[in-house]
Amino acid sequence: MSFECALPISATDRVLLGHGSGGKLTGELIEKLIVPAFANPALDALDDSAVMPFPEGRVAFTTDSYVVSPIFFPGGDIGELAVNGTINDLAVGGARPLALSLAFILEEGLPLAELQRVIASARRAADRAGVSIVTGDTKVVGRGACDRIFITTSGIGVVPPGRALGSAQVRAGDAILLSGPIGDHGIAIMALRAGLELAGDVVSDTAPLHDLSAAILCACADVHAMRDPTRGGVAATLVDIETRRKLGIEVDEAAIPERDAVRGACELLGLDPLLVANEGKLVAFVPEAGAERVLEAMRAHPLGRHAARIGSVTDHHPGMVELRTAVRGRRLLDLPFAEPLPRIC
Amino acid sequence: MSFECALPISATDRVLLGHGSGGKLTGELIEKLIVPAFANPALDALDDSAVMPFPEGRVAFTTDSYVVSPIFFPGGDIGELAVNGTINDLAVGGARPLALSLAFILEEGLPLAELQRVIASARRAADRAGVSIVTGDTKVVGRGACDRIFITTSGIGVVPPGRALGSAQVRAGDAILLSGPIGDHGIAIMALRAGLELAGDVVSDTAPLHDLSAAILCACADVHAMRDPTRGGVAATLVDIETRRKLGIEVDEAAIPERDAVRGACELLGLDPLLVANEGKLVAFVPEAGAERVLEAMRAHPLGRHAARIGSVTDHHPGMVELRTAVRGRRLLDLPFAEPLPRIC
Repeated sequence: MSFECALPISATDRVLLGHGSGGKLTGELIEKLIVPAFANPALDALDDSAVMPFPEGRVAFTTDSYVVSPIFFPGGDIGELAVNGTINDLAVGGARPLALSLAFILEEGLPLAELQRVIASARRAADRAGVSIVTGDTKVVGRGACDRIFITTSGIGVVPPGRALGSAQVRAGDAILLSGPIGDHGIAIMALRAGLELAGDVVSDTAPLHDLSAAILCACADVHAMRDPTRGGVAATLVDIETRRKLGIEVDEAAIPERDAVRGACELLGLDPLLVANEGKLVAFVPEAGAERVLEAMRAHPLGRHAARIGSVTDHHPGMVELRTAVRGRRLLDLPFAEPLPRIC
Repeated sequence: MSFECALPISATDRVLLGHGSGGKLTGELIEKLIVPAFANPALDALDDSAVMPFPEGRVAFTTDSYVVSPIFFPGGDIGELAVNGTINDLAVGGARPLALSLAFILEEGLPLAELQRVIASARRAADRAGVSIVTGDTKVVGRGACDRIFITTSGIGVVPPGRALGSAQVRAGDAILLSGPIGDHGIAIMALRAGLELAGDVVSDTAPLHDLSAAILCACADVHAMRDPTRGGVAATLVDIETRRKLGIEVDEAAIPERDAVRGACELLGLDPLLVANEGKLVAFVPEAGAERVLEAMRAHPLGRHAARIGSVTDHHPGMVELRTAVRGRRLLDLPFAEPLPRIC
């Protein structure tokens, strides 16, 4: 689909080096293909920076590069992923997303129709989250100097006065809540790359979490921290909090929601689902007093239907994440030196 | 040089795919090499987004990807370029830079020492401009999936109440002022690539323009617009304004400051210096009444010593940039379809 694209694109049209040169071709690509897709007053001004009013509150600022391969995958594509990912980094900090930027690095020879598909998908994702893409950039590099499309999304948001979420707020006694089944995004990509036919449909869980996060903060304004467990999975989130807060974490493995198809694929691929990337889940660290209210609010939201309490923060065994296994055993959760899941996002 | 880098780096250490995996290697790279270089409270929190107070005013937001090749060049490197470029996009919009983000895409096999050099250089550039790098991201792609280092920098700034610069403000009668000699950055890169020995030293003019821009706005609060003529050069800036404002522009070619070595290199390489990228220059569109004051303020600033009035905006010949040539001729300035200067920034 296209958003008033004024550039007639045929199946054989491709990105040329000249699209990045600052000449007429660059102007044509930006003004006919990219800007119309994202039309809004701040972007339409096409000045070197977008200028907007800023509401009362502190500013949240985030950035992420997306290099996922392949760029189209079950459940989404790099455009949607890049927009949702940045919305999520703002949302888990308690910020209301205000505006996004998109910077494209394009490989010479990329079919323009693929670029158009990615752009349309980014636009739909932005619309879904009610946020505008107000500024951007487009560079082109020669064949072989990048892989099709890389997108770097940045975002700004507003943190209302009085709200302060962050890993520094996590306390012993906090309940740890997870919004849904883990590993969908990573397994969707890995299965595609491995040519694996999965029993159940596993598609990327890419989704914008701003609304779920707002519902959580509405149920309990005192939530200590939220994280979206992307690269490195839920394990990386827990280990990061434990390491930086010098607290212990206890997790009940059986409580972690997981689809059968994901579990099966992980066994086949030799992966620990706790280490697999998610793109539409959040982990919340919540004072015990608010935990039930937050869990209810999560479950009442379409993106949190399968939310579960998976563990708690403790001041026993500081600096360790202890996993109670299904067979009543215990193991320490640790990050691998280097998990071989490159370009998952 | 290094900024308290806690990672001992030898000449043979290289970026590994695992540095991008979300495992321990990723943590080591980020927490030992990158974060210490940019240390500041917002970044040190290492949450998904950086949160800061926001002063009174509107927010300016900008992004640019840097894919310059080679990454080290006379007068600078990709790290300094990326920081300065984003500061400049904010500065020419009349914004005071508040914070930057840096997103790295790294090629597997890149020597870590080169990454460290680029990071140190980005930090120095940020310090010089008094701005913090508050958030970032690091992705690693396999050998051949990108070319060494790409950096996407985003920036936020504050536009004080009452200030409104932008191409939409440009009026017939505006004087066009240029802050210094053109083409240095582009020629420094092109000469290096072509293995050209230039008579004079030509080095990139990469520099942060926030202070020059503040001096200009102090001399004349009523400046209509400023631009930094990067990719596509001064020509792209003028053609862009003319096209979007449906006004004419008259430029006196002899008034455009240019170094002899740049002129010579352009002749050798068959380039029009007006089309060559600058990374430390600005073009100001100023009401006639303020033009002399602004010119004086520019010349009193180290980055504007060779500033010149190069032309004016007119309502004659709307939609055309007319260049009065040295031999009293006239030619219309137009952008090439695709100027063959890939990866200049």
